[in-house]
Amino acid sequence: MMVTSAMRDIRWTPRSAPGADDPSLANDTDRFAGQHVLSMRQYDRSDLEQLYTATDTLFSEEYDASDKPLEGKILLSAFFEKSTRTRLSHETAMLRLGGSVSGFADAQVTRAAGLAQEAHEDIYRMLSFYGDVLVTRHPDTGAPGKAAHVASIPVINAGDGLGEHPTQAMTDLYTLRQEFGRIDDLRILFTEDLRMRCIRSLLIGLQHYNCEIHCLPAAGKGLDPTLVQELRAHGRLVIEHSDLIRALPAVDVVYTSPTLRDDVPRQPPTDTPSQPSSVTITRDVLEQHAGAGLVVLNELPRRGELSSDVDETPFNRYWKQAANGLPVRMALLKLMFGK
Amino acid sequence: MMVTSAMRDIRWTPRSAPGADDPSLANDTDRFAGQHVLSMRQYDRSDLEQLYTATDTLFSEEYDASDKPLEGKILLSAFFEKSTRTRLSHETAMLRLGGSVSGFADAQVTRAAGLAQEAHEDIYRMLSFYGDVLVTRHPDTGAPGKAAHVASIPVINAGDGLGEHPTQAMTDLYTLRQEFGRIDDLRILFTEDLRMRCIRSLLIGLQHYNCEIHCLPAAGKGLDPTLVQELRAHGRLVIEHSDLIRALPAVDVVYTSPTLRDDVPRQPPTDTPSQPSSVTITRDVLEQHAGAGLVVLNELPRRGELSSDVDETPFNRYWKQAANGLPVRMALLKLMFGK
Amino acid sequence: MMVTSAMRDIRWTPRSAPGADDPSLANDTDRFAGQHVLSMRQYDRSDLEQLYTATDTLFSEEYDASDKPLEGKILLSAFFEKSTRTRLSHETAMLRLGGSVSGFADAQVTRAAGLAQEAHEDIYRMLSFYGDVLVTRHPDTGAPGKAAHVASIPVINAGDGLGEHPTQAMTDLYTLRQEFGRIDDLRILFTEDLRMRCIRSLLIGLQHYNCEIHCLPAAGKGLDPTLVQELRAHGRLVIEHSDLIRALPAVDVVYTSPTLRDDVPRQPPTDTPSQPSSVTITRDVLEQHAGAGLVVLNELPRRGELSSDVDETPFNRYWKQAANGLPVRMALLKLMFGK
Repeated sequence: MMVTSAMRDIRWTPRSAPGADDPSLANDTDRFAGQHVLSMRQYDRSDLEQLYTATDTLFSEEYDASDKPLEGKILLSAFFEKSTRTRLSHETAMLRLGGSVSGFADAQVTRAAGLAQEAHEDIYRMLSFYGDVLVTRHPDTGAPGKAAHVASIPVINAGDGLGEHPTQAMTDLYTLRQEFGRIDDLRILFTEDLRMRCIRSLLIGLQHYNCEIHCLPAAGKGLDPTLVQELRAHGRLVIEHSDLIRALPAVDVVYTSPTLRDDVPRQPPTDTPSQPSSVTITRDVLEQHAGAGLVVLNELPRRGELSSDVDETPFNRYWKQAANGLPVRMALLKLMFGK
Repeated sequence: MMVTSAMRDIRWTPRSAPGADDPSLANDTDRFAGQHVLSMRQYDRSDLEQLYTATDTLFSEEYDASDKPLEGKILLSAFFEKSTRTRLSHETAMLRLGGSVSGFADAQVTRAAGLAQEAHEDIYRMLSFYGDVLVTRHPDTGAPGKAAHVASIPVINAGDGLGEHPTQAMTDLYTLRQEFGRIDDLRILFTEDLRMRCIRSLLIGLQHYNCEIHCLPAAGKGLDPTLVQELRAHGRLVIEHSDLIRALPAVDVVYTSPTLRDDVPRQPPTDTPSQPSSVTITRDVLEQHAGAGLVVLNELPRRGELSSDVDETPFNRYWKQAANGLPVRMALLKLMFGK
Repeated sequence: MMVTSAMRDIRWTPRSAPGADDPSLANDTDRFAGQHVLSMRQYDRSDLEQLYTATDTLFSEEYDASDKPLEGKILLSAFFEKSTRTRLSHETAMLRLGGSVSGFADAQVTRAAGLAQEAHEDIYRMLSFYGDVLVTRHPDTGAPGKAAHVASIPVINAGDGLGEHPTQAMTDLYTLRQEFGRIDDLRILFTEDLRMRCIRSLLIGLQHYNCEIHCLPAAGKGLDPTLVQELRAHGRLVIEHSDLIRALPAVDVVYTSPTLRDDVPRQPPTDTPSQPSSVTITRDVLEQHAGAGLVVLNELPRRGELSSDVDETPFNRYWKQAANGLPVRMALLKLMFGK
């Protein structure tokens, strides 16, 4: 069996490492081309700026939406945990770039359900024979890293247990930059359940920006102390609050998040309605206490933490945040394929 | 952030209303281009004729099946209720036109399962950021209308509770026109459960045609009295029957439908076999009592209401009806995109 | 309604039989073009050689991976039973050839769940109106054959109950030929549960090759006696073993397979962990007792029958076997479409 360029292209032989079969992707200075996307720790400020700029070009007059830079490439979704927004924004980003999509949205359709974690690694390895990039969500923290270890193609972490959710953080950072023209000098309030993986990833990204982190957690749901230490080591102010009314005037952004339920790995599913959030952001409270330019973000779906009467106010940027999930992931995929 | 033509094309910013971003779609006389498809009430006789003609062209010698009028467009499926025929005929219609498909076939793969209806609206809004047209089935009557209210892209109702199923009615009407060369002057018998949403939609469409409606419902499963009033207000004869043997010679078409089970919203699923239909259409009864040109239709899957021994008889048009689901939906999508 | 070439191409009218609408596909000497793929019994040695040669071309320098021979064609997946590798290798093979994919990965998303077998035939017939080739897995032995009887498009059996799994056998045979340059004169040991449908299909294929079949089944899980008779009628040696240590030095290939659990039709699903295999292939036992060139195959997912410490040894060819699933199915689809 001869190793030919056609075979490399079709990728049914494992690559020794991402980028290894194409020297042009092995460039040390490019943190995206041929690389896994596992953690926000992979990116410094200039890497993130590269991503924002690539996203900006998708909004420009010159961008040709009929271009198909990823034609012939296949994105494989391997979602061992429920998702709508994250899965569909990755999948439609691939389709918008001319690529194709396959995979599974539900571990129950695979014979993987009920198998040991080791068998999951077999599945990841196998999937990498069939596609060109793998997007995975898994209830076990660290599972995408294990996938990256065995996969012959780049792996995107679309959320792992209590770990990270880097592409959500990229979208959040891009939305802040789009709204304020900068990320430095912003004061951002995180409310309710600060253990969320999207918040962890966002805070790792924010370490590179001169911003203030304000926290108003529900009882027992505060920031990981290690993360707080790390932020302070980077010179960031981390400020604890106990009262929404007093916190609001002091911040530019409120990042609301629901209390973890189905994201918690190994927690049995429940049919009881969400418990009411201890803090609910409403139109009233914003109109009375927030600064005029305050911006509200939320990683949907919301439960009780954000009232729908905020939807029609100028504070609402969570629709824009959701919409930005598409162009940011289009830009990321383009960079990963060296386009 | 500049609003550019590329952005409009990629549609990650909400449109104020379908058609609003493209003046050429705002034409009052076109009921399809850029419009939602929620109810058969949207269409008069000339609108339906426009759809049939567009479907006819797909059957013509001149039609070029390699044409890709919807290349680069994405159809999103959001099925909160089970479907095979309806979902796949929409999806393959989109693929046949050169478009792409994403979405979900099962609410269980989304985090929407167990959430409040309000959260479903968030999901619909979000989906509309990622695709160009949204097809949805939902157990709640009226849910697609709510989706249309929040979505920035056209919404197709693929069945809502006890509401409507307009694209099925379009397929049924086209099949009748194809078989008889007309829809006027047909006598159509509806049997068994007349509360079905596909029957409701079909009867709304039939109001525009000079036809007779014959009814042979199971006990407690008759036509909605409002719908009967409406048909009579349009000058249509509505005739009740109590005996299949006497009804058959008087009609040109039998539209058989199973007793509602899994279509009924909020009715708990059951593993017990379907209860036998009170009326079963068999080869014997047709050969003894039906006119020579009688045509049997059925919205599959069938349960006990239609015997498989009818399959090989000349009465069977339900395979053709099922097959027509593809070209009718291709024509509809083309018209919706102004092609 | 006129039957035109466009209609035939779009295939929304049933064909009388595969190949019937295109005389060029009716060639008696071609066992692939326009034909169903239901059983390895359809193929003799020269047919299989045709498939291997077509697969070889996908590995050649001259192969152009950007070619789209199946552009505009739709593959429909109808998986009534769980699958990851088989479904995704068929689907991505279709995508790699420029085609599209639709269907369902889980019978629960269709209204077919809980319906009678007769309704499954309705579904198969209906699916064939929407696509160009149908791939199906079903817990009932013989279901794909029934599908082929009603479908107007070619059907691929992707595993039926205790029946067959022909495309897996094609992949296994190709992998053997790739490794050894031949299939004749190989000595192949089958361990553990020899009732598996992939083993049945492989042994039917191996009847055409001058090889020795060695068996080391778990208690009560031996080869079907009819299959043994058939192999001997073809002049093949079938040798029973009771001790792995003594069997290993006598063979060139070990084909390990897990004890049947979820593949067994109508067997209730169980949440208890797999029972430990009575034979486990480990690195130690291979290094001490196997010949240097011995090759281990496995139809993943594995349970207890194959230790992960074999992964890094030169005995491991199961990753290559998994990877070959893509090009073999690409070649098969090309041949089925006469390309």
